[in-house]
Amino acid sequence: MAISPLAPASFPALPRVGGVRFATVAAGIKYRDRPDVMLADLAPGTQIAGVFTKSATRSANVLDCQTKLGSDPTGPAAIVVNSGNSNAFTGKHGDGSVSAICTAVSDTLGTDPTRVFTSSTGVIGERLPHERITNKIGDLSAGLDPANIDAAARAIMTTDTFPKGSGKTLDIDGTPVNIAGIAKGSGMIAPDMATMLVYIFTDAVIDQAALQSLLSGHTDRTFNCITVDSDTSTSDTLLLAATGASGVDVTGNAAFTDALHDVMQDLAHQVVRDGEGATKFVKVAVTGAANDADARRVAMATANSPLVKTAIAGEDPNWGRVVMAVGKSGAQANRDTLTIRFGDILVAENGWVADSYTEEAGANYMKAQDLTIGIDLGLGTGAATVWTCDLTHGYIQINADYRS
Amino acid sequence: MAISPLAPASFPALPRVGGVRFATVAAGIKYRDRPDVMLADLAPGTQIAGVFTKSATRSANVLDCQTKLGSDPTGPAAIVVNSGNSNAFTGKHGDGSVSAICTAVSDTLGTDPTRVFTSSTGVIGERLPHERITNKIGDLSAGLDPANIDAAARAIMTTDTFPKGSGKTLDIDGTPVNIAGIAKGSGMIAPDMATMLVYIFTDAVIDQAALQSLLSGHTDRTFNCITVDSDTSTSDTLLLAATGASGVDVTGNAAFTDALHDVMQDLAHQVVRDGEGATKFVKVAVTGAANDADARRVAMATANSPLVKTAIAGEDPNWGRVVMAVGKSGAQANRDTLTIRFGDILVAENGWVADSYTEEAGANYMKAQDLTIGIDLGLGTGAATVWTCDLTHGYIQINADYRS
Repeated sequence: MAISPLAPASFPALPRVGGVRFATVAAGIKYRDRPDVMLADLAPGTQIAGVFTKSATRSANVLDCQTKLGSDPTGPAAIVVNSGNSNAFTGKHGDGSVSAICTAVSDTLGTDPTRVFTSSTGVIGERLPHERITNKIGDLSAGLDPANIDAAARAIMTTDTFPKGSGKTLDIDGTPVNIAGIAKGSGMIAPDMATMLVYIFTDAVIDQAALQSLLSGHTDRTFNCITVDSDTSTSDTLLLAATGASGVDVTGNAAFTDALHDVMQDLAHQVVRDGEGATKFVKVAVTGAANDADARRVAMATANSPLVKTAIAGEDPNWGRVVMAVGKSGAQANRDTLTIRFGDILVAENGWVADSYTEEAGANYMKAQDLTIGIDLGLGTGAATVWTCDLTHGYIQINADYRS
Repeated sequence: MAISPLAPASFPALPRVGGVRFATVAAGIKYRDRPDVMLADLAPGTQIAGVFTKSATRSANVLDCQTKLGSDPTGPAAIVVNSGNSNAFTGKHGDGSVSAICTAVSDTLGTDPTRVFTSSTGVIGERLPHERITNKIGDLSAGLDPANIDAAARAIMTTDTFPKGSGKTLDIDGTPVNIAGIAKGSGMIAPDMATMLVYIFTDAVIDQAALQSLLSGHTDRTFNCITVDSDTSTSDTLLLAATGASGVDVTGNAAFTDALHDVMQDLAHQVVRDGEGATKFVKVAVTGAANDADARRVAMATANSPLVKTAIAGEDPNWGRVVMAVGKSGAQANRDTLTIRFGDILVAENGWVADSYTEEAGANYMKAQDLTIGIDLGLGTGAATVWTCDLTHGYIQINADYRS
């Protein structure tokens, strides 16, 4: 698979987060000759917050993680992730696989099973050969290294074409506080949430309730504002672990809040940039809606419209399809107060193409790799921004042939 | 454009409907060297019922038609349709174009302007050169012919690869009653409604309220149960005209009701069979839902899922993606009561792949051109059936390059 044309130039240099060590191993679950399991070992006292898919058919791993948030944080914790098999819709076998992995980690690292969080990503409906994972826990344990986050980002990839990472170091009253996160995409990406696994680590001190509140709030404006194909995974998991190793309490600290938001937004954008077959990164910014919910409806209807997405793939400034998407969204809209912009170019207003608009200007704008579609409904103050990519032959190619 | 592999072998022989005459002309609106305007002239007393897109940005034509349903049926009526330009999002110009066309028809045929119904289909947001239509009303009037419905079906095509028609003749107490309809697709097809224009004619006697009730009820189970790409057009129009020329009152007649349903379902299926790039015709039948609305949610989530549709294109029996679609639909669902079938093949039950299922059987089934995905939620008696097609390279090709 060729690397997405929207990929960053390189994996970023991520700060080391105190209290976290990583290891990866090639367990041969589906992929050959590449690491497909990662383990993150977390210091005693680590607080863990999480956000998960709302799918009614979510995986055994997700159901298990959900029960473990807020458990006693005294001892160490661990996160184990495999790629190649999602362990979703695997009936009682799926529950057994999760339990076997948690027990194996507990036996080897001494972590309480209620503090072991697992994720699985890949094909749905095939039994997870979890013994290939449990057989490797010893190797993983021996390989734990605080510098290994790059390898972890690679081990969780499925159809991703590049590993995704983002981090920040803050200076809080003279003490560094670090945040580093990794993510995987790249199909079944839609809000609430996506085929997405995201793990973010910080050495800040913060209690679980405050951590969860930060995570949930930021998720609504980052990961829940991206869409690749409108499909929602059974496995989406976003975990945020705060080890406290910096000794700095960040409760209510605006700089920390902002830094965490930036890391989450960066990772969310990277997931879109690796959308299956993507050649364009598209921001859909809606303003002037009757309310924020309507703005989000319009933004999502536009970002998920196959006709809008194929027009973008074809570099066709087909703003009529944007009008169509606004119309079908279910949001309150009025033809005669609607304004559409491509970047800074005024395309349509007052129910008609703008006098100043030329097809040449529109066509030229569409050649850029990063695009902004601006939609002002002219009705109120509701606003929403979502990010998506185009719909190309590459998407069909990847998904019409995924399992073979 | 190659004809869809799912097309019927030929255009059906449609019955002549008393009181209706058709004419077509090449007006050069967008297409060259092909008829792109059709006129249907309807006898005095014709009752007209209609169903239209719910888009908030619907076209001037749709808005105009909606005001005209239920107007005094004493005089003759007319339907004028052009392809190549949708006259949607054309501001005041759009209203002016509709008015100009209605006036020209009225001047030539003597039809009251409130009895002239117009539709336009094609590109959104470009001014309709309506003078090319009004200049041809004389030619159209001179060419009116009761046998011309085939040509009418062709004149309303845009990206359609075959003309769509369906008809029935009933014998009611020894007198024939005819129904004949034509439709066009084939992108922006989704319920409420689709990029669809449909015109159905009958010489039955029935009052407007009863006709509208029949049409609306059948639409919910036919045209509103198909989806190609989840996009909803700004121009969808379905008109049903009853001329009364047979002299047979069909009010409350079950045979007529059924025949009308069959014609509508046949046309709806033909629209799916001409879905842009379609190579498979797919029925999604949901049963066992908590209620009918939930069943419809599941059916539509499955039928609109890009991942399900690309798997079908690839002839991949990827039932895990069906599980995903069920999960994301928002309907009440339970992994352990869910049953999935491909045709008669039991694929999954009790939260797990069925013991009897083999990948070979699934893969073999997916090679067929007409497929049925059966989903039983095991929760109640709610049911819904929708029809869709696969998502292929052909769809991308057509839509990434539509305007050039």
